Amino acid sequence: MQLIENANQEAVTRMLSADPVLIDVIPASEAIPALKDHMILHAGPPVAWADMCGPMQGAIAGIAVFEGWASDLEDAAAKAATGAFDFHPNHHFDAVGPMTGMTTLSQPLMVVENRTYKNRAYCALNEGLGKVMRFGGNDASVLARLAWLRDSFGPAVGRALRSGDGIPLKHLIARGLTMGDEMHQRNVACSGLLLRELAPALARTADDNDELAKALAFIGGNDQFFLNVAMAMGKSIMDPVRNIHGSSIVTAMCRNGTDFGIRVSGTGDTWFTAPVEMPEGLYFPGFTEADANPDMGDSTIVETIGLGGFAMGASPAVAGFVGAGAASEAGNFTRTMSEIAAGENPEWTIPAMDYLGVPTGIDIRLVLETGLAPTINTGIAHREPGVGQVGAGVVRAPMKCFEGALIALAESVGVK
Amino acid sequence: MQLIENANQEAVTRMLSADPVLIDVIPASEAIPALKDHMILHAGPPVAWADMCGPMQGAIAGIAVFEGWASDLEDAAAKAATGAFDFHPNHHFDAVGPMTGMTTLSQPLMVVENRTYKNRAYCALNEGLGKVMRFGGNDASVLARLAWLRDSFGPAVGRALRSGDGIPLKHLIARGLTMGDEMHQRNVACSGLLLRELAPALARTADDNDELAKALAFIGGNDQFFLNVAMAMGKSIMDPVRNIHGSSIVTAMCRNGTDFGIRVSGTGDTWFTAPVEMPEGLYFPGFTEADANPDMGDSTIVETIGLGGFAMGASPAVAGFVGAGAASEAGNFTRTMSEIAAGENPEWTIPAMDYLGVPTGIDIRLVLETGLAPTINTGIAHREPGVGQVGAGVVRAPMKCFEGALIALAESVGVK
Repeated sequence: MQLIENANQEAVTRMLSADPVLIDVIPASEAIPALKDHMILHAGPPVAWADMCGPMQGAIAGIAVFEGWASDLEDAAAKAATGAFDFHPNHHFDAVGPMTGMTTLSQPLMVVENRTYKNRAYCALNEGLGKVMRFGGNDASVLARLAWLRDSFGPAVGRALRSGDGIPLKHLIARGLTMGDEMHQRNVACSGLLLRELAPALARTADDNDELAKALAFIGGNDQFFLNVAMAMGKSIMDPVRNIHGSSIVTAMCRNGTDFGIRVSGTGDTWFTAPVEMPEGLYFPGFTEADANPDMGDSTIVETIGLGGFAMGASPAVAGFVGAGAASEAGNFTRTMSEIAAGENPEWTIPAMDYLGVPTGIDIRLVLETGLAPTINTGIAHREPGVGQVGAGVVRAPMKCFEGALIALAESVGVK
Repeated sequence: MQLIENANQEAVTRMLSADPVLIDVIPASEAIPALKDHMILHAGPPVAWADMCGPMQGAIAGIAVFEGWASDLEDAAAKAATGAFDFHPNHHFDAVGPMTGMTTLSQPLMVVENRTYKNRAYCALNEGLGKVMRFGGNDASVLARLAWLRDSFGPAVGRALRSGDGIPLKHLIARGLTMGDEMHQRNVACSGLLLRELAPALARTADDNDELAKALAFIGGNDQFFLNVAMAMGKSIMDPVRNIHGSSIVTAMCRNGTDFGIRVSGTGDTWFTAPVEMPEGLYFPGFTEADANPDMGDSTIVETIGLGGFAMGASPAVAGFVGAGAASEAGNFTRTMSEIAAGENPEWTIPAMDYLGVPTGIDIRLVLETGLAPTINTGIAHREPGVGQVGAGVVRAPMKCFEGALIALAESVGVK
């Protein structure tokens, strides 16, 4: 259908012409004026408290204590159960968040501006590995780290970014793809490249070198620091692709630990959901799949732009980490995802695949024609609140989301 | 011959048990007490002024002006021609230097200690790209940068390193190999990993944040910053492998722009030399092979330890940069070099080759049996003094060096 082809061409053009730049870190209350007291934004499509998984409930209890809306975790859970908090998806507020994806008033958010389309997208700072709120962690150490991010680290990075013209991300991603990152489960190269850009400005704008050293060590010690930047970038790239009449390109994929949701350009902001699947992966010592929570987080926005599982060929080292088979065969994932993509990205290429561009623009028609669901590289949270990450793996987006979206798209263009 | 097999086993054991740690930056006069006024250490085996290539003569003129031993470049060249300076290889003083490899009294040298064998090795700081002394550059901008390295940057890095326990390099190299570096013509990952380690200590020990920002930007802006660290590391690993009776393992390869020289463990510190070859590679815009100087520098110590051309499979992106064919076939270089290596390194592995260890310990017998000379990834200098880098390429070590070494080795073990 020519209408759909033209619409998808426009969608891919908007994706490839995006110019995402990391420009600031500001409190969520400034970034998202609609964010009010007792509002909690979470990952994935909408979900009620009663339907939330363990780590999501754990994170909500933790963030409520952090914001001073509850005296302790029990109090927070009781209040949540009686409707004291207002839950919304990050995606409804130009934002994304990894795993549980908590966004509330006082948290510092990174700001990525898509300079081509003048829109902005937001994501909280990556907390590091181990016991962290995005994996459902909520104890005093988790809250103390959030307080440091809010009071010291976030403002420092914001000052550094505002002292210059921002950090353009398109070229940084291109370099990261030549350095083994796929920007979902492997971000060590991009985290280092970002540190190279940020460090001089952090030094010039620092008022306390002990805090400066702590900030530099925090970025340098967190191989996943860049993930949250990649997510805000992904959101900033995909938001202008929304609402192209007839386009069958996916504009968002995300999971709340209960449901998987997708949005498609031609069907606007409607969520097409299905029960989320369980990742297949590798577990940290002492944990098994019996400990695993189903798939969770807004991070699969990176697959939506051709990274993560779609760029596995760039990242043979991640194949082992996520249990995706032989490192030398990582390119097979990228080749397979090319079958469901509308195009390839000539600026984001994979050297080991002789500079093949990453698959760009998931076409729901191709997903259904081929039966190939998008491959997602993901972290795995413990199913209980308060524990944290237990592994990493690969998961497929549920086909039911794409089936529902295609029916709605067909209706939107007058096909029964 | 069992004597040789046993000796080579010992050589490989010493290589693999090395524990190189970057511990300091100190003036060459402290690092190498034997270094005196008017002494100039250079890359490669011994060479007289009259036999030196253009960039080597250019660098010597420049460093003589820098040290105050000549009023200008002409005066320096005239003095050099009349024997005013004492030339020696870096390798004779526990040191290595890239390309022209100038080492003189006042320059800051990085110190790598091999903690297993308690020996130390030295290398000057990488000057960055463009017009630099290692490529024969010698104008005021080149000397001003050397002065800044001597007066500000070198002391700052030294303070930072001394404030901690040093930076262990073995694991850093292992990570770099998973991030597309081969540590000769591609060091962007290791340079970033080193910055991550250094930056907090630089911040804690800084007394001026403008200089700190400049130092952070210098490291962050130089993708080859780590090369000189890798070289000092290589020297620190290979020096304890010298003088094992009967061993046919290469302990050093280097070039002075005129001759290529190798040392072999069983024949001690004797140089086996041959005229150096011309790299085959790619040239920067505006330059051609007519501008190229023959192969030069001590940097091929990294191939001696299994990196550079031997680790090409880790670095598909470098294949294009050095003109070595299709990126997807970079692994062929590593496979070929495995044919002349005594072992492989289980800690330095290449994900895309399903974690094959890099070829370790060049056995001169295998070089001659197979006819496969070591592959070296190299920068290419302009043949005239004062110009700088014009490209990068691949070059082979001349077979004549290995022939001469094998005859001497045979004699050393009583075989005629």
